[in-house]
Amino acid sequence: MARCEPNAAERLALAALELFAERGYENTTVAGIAQRAGLTKSTFFRHFQDKREVLFGDGTMNGLVAGAIAAAPAAATPLEAVAHALDAVGREAFIPARREFVARRRAVIAANPELREREALKGLGLIASMTDALGRRGVPSLTSCVAAELGALAWKIAYERWSDPANGDDFSEVAQRALGEVQAASALC
Amino acid sequence: MARCEPNAAERLALAALELFAERGYENTTVAGIAQRAGLTKSTFFRHFQDKREVLFGDGTMNGLVAGAIAAAPAAATPLEAVAHALDAVGREAFIPARREFVARRRAVIAANPELREREALKGLGLIASMTDALGRRGVPSLTSCVAAELGALAWKIAYERWSDPANGDDFSEVAQRALGEVQAASALC
Repeated sequence: MARCEPNAAERLALAALELFAERGYENTTVAGIAQRAGLTKSTFFRHFQDKREVLFGDGTMNGLVAGAIAAAPAAATPLEAVAHALDAVGREAFIPARREFVARRRAVIAANPELREREALKGLGLIASMTDALGRRGVPSLTSCVAAELGALAWKIAYERWSDPANGDDFSEVAQRALGEVQAASALC
Repeated sequence: MARCEPNAAERLALAALELFAERGYENTTVAGIAQRAGLTKSTFFRHFQDKREVLFGDGTMNGLVAGAIAAAPAAATPLEAVAHALDAVGREAFIPARREFVARRRAVIAANPELREREALKGLGLIASMTDALGRRGVPSLTSCVAAELGALAWKIAYERWSDPANGDDFSEVAQRALGEVQAASALC
């Protein structure tokens, strides 16, 4: 019975974002999100496991980050490899055309404990992906963990700065600066 | 109508841990947890907002950590102040008598996505408490963030090592070693 619905995941995310902002997260149902997107509830569940999940994409971010770390030059330090990952995020995911969506999404998540909880778990997943990808480059386990945590912190700082409508820079530039600041701060700890 | 129930939160946590292990998290109800603890459902909700929350204590950990950072000597570096916090956790929370409970709790959380999600959010709360407490010592904002992240990573490593039944060391010792390793690794990133 499954039909091919172009951009279904993106349409559902946009619909959910509108409804969460209009009615609140608690007062929005999966059926309501599907209806607003012009899709069915079963299409929703083909893309997302539950209501919380709808703002967290199709799961391609972990692979994007791991792939970029794997593709970094052999001589790159762990944080240089992480910088490659942040670059890829700016090229493929946090592109200028998505800044407004990301800013609205960020506000909706910040306002809801269930979404903050899901975001926290997604953050751990990204850190695990970066840690594993660094490990496959031969970086020792604990160094991989620390580099991934520092990268995730730079990511978070860059995400906050870049999603501010007053910021006109590319995510990649903002992220490279943040990573440099994080690295400098770690020497002062 | 509220009655004073001694150690209600701890009794509920123990009952929940038993039931999650016996029946699985999904098949356990708040009413069932309260019954196993010899308490009422309304007593449960006086202590915990929902079923997920029952394994995450009474919220005193954040204050314990912030207080220990505030009480560190004025000359302490950010990571030395964080080391004070880990010490306090070993003295007040992860005491030897709780090792078995912590090990069982860890296994139950690892097996359940909802509990992992709540744990991820609690982790962010602890990092925020450490960051704020370092900020109140005059540590610059970004340095506070990085020191708190490194401290949280040392905490996680120490928690895994210490909750292993084969480990006989105090949490404080395990945590100080982990923090030293994390600091050394950050210089190699």
